[in-house]
Amino acid sequence: MDEKIINNIKSLAIDMIDKAGSGHPGIVLGAAPIIYTLYSRHMNVIPNDNNWLSRDRFVLSAGHGSALLYATLFMAGYDISMEDLKHFRKQGYKTPGHPEYGVTPGVDVSTGPLGQGIATAVGLALGEKMLENKFSLEKEGKIFSNKPLVNYNVFVLCGDGDLMEGISYEAASFAGTLNLNNLIVLYDSNNVSLDGDTSNTFTENVLDRFKAMGWYTLKVGDGNNVNEIDKAINAAKKSLRPTIIEVKTTIGYGSLNAGTNTVHGKLLEKDDLAQLKASLEVPKEPFYVNEEAKKYFTRLIFERSSVKHDLWSRLFSEYRTLNHEYDKDIVDIYIKNQNVELINGERQWIFNYEEKEATRDSNHEIINEIARQVPNFVGGSADVASSVRTNLRDLGEIKDGHYTGKNIMFGVREHAMGAILNGLALTGFKTFGSTFLSFADYMKPAIRMSALMDLPVNYIFSHDSINIGPDGPTHQPIEQLAMLRSTPNLNVFRPADANEVLGSWQVMLNSHNPNALILSRLEQNNLKCTNPLLVKNGAYIVRKENRILHGVIIATGTEVTLALNIAETLFAKEGIDLRVVSMPCMEIFMNQPKEYKESLIPMGVKVMVIEAGSSFGWHQFVYSDKYLFTVNDFGLSGSRDEVLRACHLDFNYIYESILKLYK
Amino acid sequence: MDEKIINNIKSLAIDMIDKAGSGHPGIVLGAAPIIYTLYSRHMNVIPNDNNWLSRDRFVLSAGHGSALLYATLFMAGYDISMEDLKHFRKQGYKTPGHPEYGVTPGVDVSTGPLGQGIATAVGLALGEKMLENKFSLEKEGKIFSNKPLVNYNVFVLCGDGDLMEGISYEAASFAGTLNLNNLIVLYDSNNVSLDGDTSNTFTENVLDRFKAMGWYTLKVGDGNNVNEIDKAINAAKKSLRPTIIEVKTTIGYGSLNAGTNTVHGKLLEKDDLAQLKASLEVPKEPFYVNEEAKKYFTRLIFERSSVKHDLWSRLFSEYRTLNHEYDKDIVDIYIKNQNVELINGERQWIFNYEEKEATRDSNHEIINEIARQVPNFVGGSADVASSVRTNLRDLGEIKDGHYTGKNIMFGVREHAMGAILNGLALTGFKTFGSTFLSFADYMKPAIRMSALMDLPVNYIFSHDSINIGPDGPTHQPIEQLAMLRSTPNLNVFRPADANEVLGSWQVMLNSHNPNALILSRLEQNNLKCTNPLLVKNGAYIVRKENRILHGVIIATGTEVTLALNIAETLFAKEGIDLRVVSMPCMEIFMNQPKEYKESLIPMGVKVMVIEAGSSFGWHQFVYSDKYLFTVNDFGLSGSRDEVLRACHLDFNYIYESILKLYK
Repeated sequence: MDEKIINNIKSLAIDMIDKAGSGHPGIVLGAAPIIYTLYSRHMNVIPNDNNWLSRDRFVLSAGHGSALLYATLFMAGYDISMEDLKHFRKQGYKTPGHPEYGVTPGVDVSTGPLGQGIATAVGLALGEKMLENKFSLEKEGKIFSNKPLVNYNVFVLCGDGDLMEGISYEAASFAGTLNLNNLIVLYDSNNVSLDGDTSNTFTENVLDRFKAMGWYTLKVGDGNNVNEIDKAINAAKKSLRPTIIEVKTTIGYGSLNAGTNTVHGKLLEKDDLAQLKASLEVPKEPFYVNEEAKKYFTRLIFERSSVKHDLWSRLFSEYRTLNHEYDKDIVDIYIKNQNVELINGERQWIFNYEEKEATRDSNHEIINEIARQVPNFVGGSADVASSVRTNLRDLGEIKDGHYTGKNIMFGVREHAMGAILNGLALTGFKTFGSTFLSFADYMKPAIRMSALMDLPVNYIFSHDSINIGPDGPTHQPIEQLAMLRSTPNLNVFRPADANEVLGSWQVMLNSHNPNALILSRLEQNNLKCTNPLLVKNGAYIVRKENRILHGVIIATGTEVTLALNIAETLFAKEGIDLRVVSMPCMEIFMNQPKEYKESLIPMGVKVMVIEAGSSFGWHQFVYSDKYLFTVNDFGLSGSRDEVLRACHLDFNYIYESILKLYK
Repeated sequence: MDEKIINNIKSLAIDMIDKAGSGHPGIVLGAAPIIYTLYSRHMNVIPNDNNWLSRDRFVLSAGHGSALLYATLFMAGYDISMEDLKHFRKQGYKTPGHPEYGVTPGVDVSTGPLGQGIATAVGLALGEKMLENKFSLEKEGKIFSNKPLVNYNVFVLCGDGDLMEGISYEAASFAGTLNLNNLIVLYDSNNVSLDGDTSNTFTENVLDRFKAMGWYTLKVGDGNNVNEIDKAINAAKKSLRPTIIEVKTTIGYGSLNAGTNTVHGKLLEKDDLAQLKASLEVPKEPFYVNEEAKKYFTRLIFERSSVKHDLWSRLFSEYRTLNHEYDKDIVDIYIKNQNVELINGERQWIFNYEEKEATRDSNHEIINEIARQVPNFVGGSADVASSVRTNLRDLGEIKDGHYTGKNIMFGVREHAMGAILNGLALTGFKTFGSTFLSFADYMKPAIRMSALMDLPVNYIFSHDSINIGPDGPTHQPIEQLAMLRSTPNLNVFRPADANEVLGSWQVMLNSHNPNALILSRLEQNNLKCTNPLLVKNGAYIVRKENRILHGVIIATGTEVTLALNIAETLFAKEGIDLRVVSMPCMEIFMNQPKEYKESLIPMGVKVMVIEAGSSFGWHQFVYSDKYLFTVNDFGLSGSRDEVLRACHLDFNYIYESILKLYK
């Protein structure tokens, strides 16, 4: 029966690709026995309960193998119809070109860009460890079950391409350090990538490399041998370390072009398809389903998984009996978007208005309060927690064997950090990760995945502009705000002071999408004119004109203080009466009703912008370049004042320039 | 004398940091013996001839150790003055916060963002191999010297942070595959990173990992032992593989906080500084220089290097005698910005106007021609050469032991590809690297370094918009054009057809900065209205109004054809007479004189934009959002037509919308 099902999965997937006119036959024919073995003998999943917290997770890191996954899920009884298979890669069906979270039942993670899947899976595995430790069946020192409530494995199918990507190395090294033994990677090792034989590009000993990172390694010599694969997975499940199983396969096995890069991403020719179907012993007609095989496969998975699901139900009700007071926790994990009232809640926020304070420090206080209020709020830093100030005090650190803390030390691994945050968010956590703004570049692909999957991940970036001075141009962000603001479905907050940091978090915590919070290390006074309650509008007035409106300055972050100083001086010395608008979130402001927007920035009035970053994206507010006080070239190493002057972002330059606009 | 010089380097660097008020004492005190050993006993450099092609290269990948490097270069006799040291991290001196190429003599690469340095060094090492093989002292099968003309080593000093970054893994795996045995990495292994002990974040066995990647590995137990370090470097120089030497050091050695993360990036306290100087046996007064030690160190380096430099001079004149016809090659390597005449040169370009052709295919023809014309033009792909169409026909592939080809197979390593291209450009090559536009995200940090260092690197990105259809949102770029256009010092070209691809290359090849070339796989007819000679203006008219100018459509890339079709139909059916402007390079256009800009886009006329990408950055041309036909949300998986319709970028939607603007 094994072979029948495998052959049917293969023929369905090949038919899907053939009908769609595009797709990747190579992995379908090479890796079908791997995915089949996994689902038939190991994956504990209930196809009609895809929110079951303790289900096993599967991540197809080699996302171009989507047809293989969909055909398998179809055969396994997931809610995917024959029409879906027949409309592979078409709009409005559950079978998109690459797996998409939220579109297809059974797809736990969106994948496609290589390396993202395996790194996100590390986040899923860490998430399981954290949940397992969080929801303990223990009361007053007494343990009520020898099984943990939450307990599952994370399986990954990846290819050479995934393992060549740096992000997979970063994540694997992290997984080794934390010993995530619930992570099992199946490496479809076929010695071929898109451009040809991997002997030209990838000659390392992958297993030795993983061994050096503290992984358990196994090799399966014959990727068509279900029993051999099964045996390896069984060994992996018992391992005390994360496991990688190298499964030697033949790309496009059974095709006339088997073993070559021709079969990776090109359709099979007619005659090749015919001979393949003959050897698979399936009819020539496309989309053949062996109903008996389907029923058998569905039942096999269901019956095994039900045992675990029943155990979960029993333990869960025990847990509820034991832990009334913790009910909120598990509800948080399920219903991710609980409302958090930071501003109007019990906590009275008293900010210091006398001494100077950097927004990174205000943020530090606020996230510590959030971490205490919000059970599923966790996060960490790419080795700059002490500079961005994001450690959560007294809330423990995640370490090898200790997964109850809230602080995650990602190491100098920005890219993997992003993907791991995504994995944690997919597990039910509200997450944050911190680094310097100029290193947002390192994590862009993972940020994009947060946005694409609509995950509540909060990126905290400090050292936000040229005003960091001496570190020089490599560390001074210029274009990063534009990069982030132009990313769909990501909101970028650049608060002016503590009030606005608070207001930003009020919005961020209750949003359904990822956010970026841009902070400064520059110490400035908190402002009395800012208002946390107004951040939700994206922008608002922080200085109203005294008599007649002569113009509007829009500013963000540390430049709000500069704008206010300039406006006050211009009024006092020259009688020029400017309004100052703080715009902590451009994206939200642009979505406000026209009336609101015009109430802040009336038509026909001179508008100026001050922001220590690229002008890119700001032209929509101004008449011409001379109203923009922004930075379009790289900065330089120097004292803060030297750099601001050199970049024409100092008080005097802007003051004089604005004056000229009025003369 | 060794110790005296090391101590003087340490005290100078610590004084620099102390005076600057910021910097990183930890690496100075920990790694001074390493850098000293390297310069005193190995580096072949002539401090007053920093353009000597065959000099050894040194890359301080741990760029935060800049003070250590500057103090060493000062002592070694480079043109760095005491005033420079005293103005560390100040504007206008040769001692910026992180090493900057072009600012400080002896600094071969800008570094700072971790991992970039080591990856760029892999490019330098490959560059050496390619030059070594290119400039052979051979004529008619007879070899005239047993020494190669070009022959040097690339040394790297890196820390834990560099090795945690994914880019360093990618580059190291690549270096192992190509067996770059001229690369020697000195790993300052001190078990401490910014946030604390690496036992929390980085527990892998680094040497075993490198061994698995085909590297030769060595360990030096005592990082203060010059002879031990020296011995290891000697062994590395003889190795047939790239070498990593793990040197166990104590961060901040000699400080009261030695061995902890406190000393990584914080100034030493007064008393700590005092006791340190006492133990270093240098006077308390800052900026002490032992002139005798300086002289000795300078002479040591000069005398050793002169031997090699003399040999070079002799071999170079032999080479010139042997190879008159190849003179141009070596001149190209020295004078990087030779003018290349692609359009008005000998080659007659005949493009096909009858059959449809994608710009990726036009580009394929053009880069093949360039590769034949331009000796130092080399490049490759991150495993998608067959999709982006960037293989150089019959020009050989770079492989282990074979470095004479022009095609580099980077593997699925976009990020390392960027840095390796930077290293090759620093060696004198004009380089290109290709991947899909949505994966530009993976290489952003390296692209930024190309721009910061002003390197002639050409990034070729195909699959440039939602019009790729079925692959879905992970593969459909939206915000990438904005990301690239907002990057300082990078020009982004999005040509409409073969003519404009040619025009783009004409500009790109003769520019001094990096470029991004955005290509499509969509087959369209080449246009008769496009003009390669006008690309240098950034934008130009491709359809002039027939009678009265009713408005202007700006379009780029594949949307130029769409804009032309819409304009023609609007004129034929409705008498609306629109001009169409093709804008292959926004950055260049924005730098044109006002008169030119207004001659294309006159004031007071309706302006519309059509581009299959984010509107971010386009507002500067239009009155309001309704004139923008762009894509601000993620795409979807579907046929091309489905996707274009869903994203409101199809003919009908835009046609009707423009019609409404005129009613």
